[in-house]
Amino acid sequence: MFLDASGSAPLTNRTLEAFQAGLADGWADPARLHAEARRARQLLDGAREAIAESLGARPEHTHFAPTFAIGLERVMAGIYAARRGRDRVVATAIERDATLHSADYVSGGGLTLVEVDGAGHVVLEHLREALDVPDVALAAVQHGNHEIGTVQRLGDVAEVTTAAGVPLVVDATASIGHGEAPEAWDALVANPADWGGPAGVGVVALRPRTRWLPVWPEGGDWAPGGVSVPAALAAAVALQERREHLAQTGPRLHALIERVRLEAASWPGVTVVGDPDHRLPHIATLSCLYVDGEALLTRLDRHGIAVGSGSACTTSSLEPSRVLEKIGARGHGNVRLGLHPGVSDDDVTRLLEVLPRVIGDLRAEAGAPALS
Amino acid sequence: MFLDASGSAPLTNRTLEAFQAGLADGWADPARLHAEARRARQLLDGAREAIAESLGARPEHTHFAPTFAIGLERVMAGIYAARRGRDRVVATAIERDATLHSADYVSGGGLTLVEVDGAGHVVLEHLREALDVPDVALAAVQHGNHEIGTVQRLGDVAEVTTAAGVPLVVDATASIGHGEAPEAWDALVANPADWGGPAGVGVVALRPRTRWLPVWPEGGDWAPGGVSVPAALAAAVALQERREHLAQTGPRLHALIERVRLEAASWPGVTVVGDPDHRLPHIATLSCLYVDGEALLTRLDRHGIAVGSGSACTTSSLEPSRVLEKIGARGHGNVRLGLHPGVSDDDVTRLLEVLPRVIGDLRAEAGAPALS
Repeated sequence: MFLDASGSAPLTNRTLEAFQAGLADGWADPARLHAEARRARQLLDGAREAIAESLGARPEHTHFAPTFAIGLERVMAGIYAARRGRDRVVATAIERDATLHSADYVSGGGLTLVEVDGAGHVVLEHLREALDVPDVALAAVQHGNHEIGTVQRLGDVAEVTTAAGVPLVVDATASIGHGEAPEAWDALVANPADWGGPAGVGVVALRPRTRWLPVWPEGGDWAPGGVSVPAALAAAVALQERREHLAQTGPRLHALIERVRLEAASWPGVTVVGDPDHRLPHIATLSCLYVDGEALLTRLDRHGIAVGSGSACTTSSLEPSRVLEKIGARGHGNVRLGLHPGVSDDDVTRLLEVLPRVIGDLRAEAGAPALS
Repeated sequence: MFLDASGSAPLTNRTLEAFQAGLADGWADPARLHAEARRARQLLDGAREAIAESLGARPEHTHFAPTFAIGLERVMAGIYAARRGRDRVVATAIERDATLHSADYVSGGGLTLVEVDGAGHVVLEHLREALDVPDVALAAVQHGNHEIGTVQRLGDVAEVTTAAGVPLVVDATASIGHGEAPEAWDALVANPADWGGPAGVGVVALRPRTRWLPVWPEGGDWAPGGVSVPAALAAAVALQERREHLAQTGPRLHALIERVRLEAASWPGVTVVGDPDHRLPHIATLSCLYVDGEALLTRLDRHGIAVGSGSACTTSSLEPSRVLEKIGARGHGNVRLGLHPGVSDDDVTRLLEVLPRVIGDLRAEAGAPALS
């Protein structure tokens, strides 16, 4: 039971078939001049066009990057460079690590964080204040949050950034494929692995009006050393498949998460975080008092249930979750669910049986005080 | 007939099977804590160990990068940063564009080019002179050249760099899998797509003694946003397969190229470039007087024969070849052959029938003077 579909998901048969077709016909370097290269180039161009259309972007301004993180890094560096003389980057406090690290890096430490409210929405008044200085190069605001699921009201955000004349970079790496693509952005970054595509490819889209400079060694090339054509093709097909079924899967997953949210809210010492309504359909995070997050993940894993834990609890980080702390929730003892379209009602029923027992067991073992 | 196997090659069945196994079992994010992540991590660690062993490197100092070009960029930036106060990069004049662009970029224009001789070997005396200043951060010398096939005498090169106390970065992106891995390096970059692996993954190996700093946003992570586990696995299996058959394929391809070199040398107005002996087994470049390189590639493509043209003649560049000009050959009208293990004796026989006819036709059409 894989309930950690945020940033990765099992590949569907159709996506696997696309990948295999890409390996068979798209192994050549698309930059060369012979028939094998032309076939690879056609597949790559077709994949770019299909993804651009899904993003509401123009194919000629849609680029494959080696990964979404490198896409984020380069698009911020490129726009920053084009805004010569302005040296600050403004970002919400709950952006991804990849965004904040890149923002800090490209601005040489000139990063301004904007607070969010308890549901995870950026406080527009604070955003306006942060932009009310002459030296802001760009603003980075995510679409959907990968930990708490909250979807920003980007229309309102864009009104503020547009009024300030500041380009808006939108991290859509947790939302594309799970609902409507956002419309309010000057640059957008997406992660195919998050929508059931393969790892090893990222997507950057820019508006025709968005100015950027290639401040990296290879000039205008967003994927120096080459894009994996099979990965790009599989990414396009996976997104197509998600969109075709979105009218069914979106409401179904939304209802399953609603069920989890409602039921978990009745468990003692468990808080459900994020906006209950304006949210990604497939993500929920529960914050559990007197429970160690790593132990919770490990115990559920032994029950054959894979869950996540946001930015915390990877093999390289057992830090408390910054995102949860920023919305005023506990950063420890949290569990994140990410549902992919293959998750059934029965899977969620089983989770709702096992999870409270595991939480109770862990509390008992730790000698935690009684909760009611 | 695919005779452009330099930087890409058709994937063998065994490599395809490895890729498919990787897609089935390695789709999860290896950084997480559940069973699916552990499986992906085991595959990735196994792939890293196998490739490290082939490179004569330690697994813990062998890293996957998103592409070889990003690997080159980051390893040079990282070593440069660790050599604080030294601000020049020395490189041979026939390094790849990716190397020279990165060297120029990380050193802020402080790139010193070292000349090569007519066979493409770096002139050691010139290298010694270029390093005989106190401010050299690193030297970049390729192992095998991707256009002319010449293999540098890296033992001699390393004696010079070691005496100067300068780290030696070796671009082995055209040689790994085609012969013995080089031993004389402080850092090495390899390209799986060149040895019959997939695109979308690169390899960086460092010696334990080689100092570097992570001068990029994501800290010590060489593949921010994640490595494609299936691609890494397929890369390892492809290299393993190449090495298992190297004792047979190496001499066979070497002899086929020898046949091409000898026969083409007898064609009027055709020069065979590069070191005839100390070379990659599978690469040959012919420089053809009074012939347009693009027309030659296109005409051969119509005969169903895919060849390359080194750094020149891609869809994005019809510039003359810098590498050929640096060894004193014509930069125009060149054709590069890259043989992969699937190429047969009959394929080469057919090439040797078609190619001189095509050259003759193109010269006649262009009204070129008679040659003898």
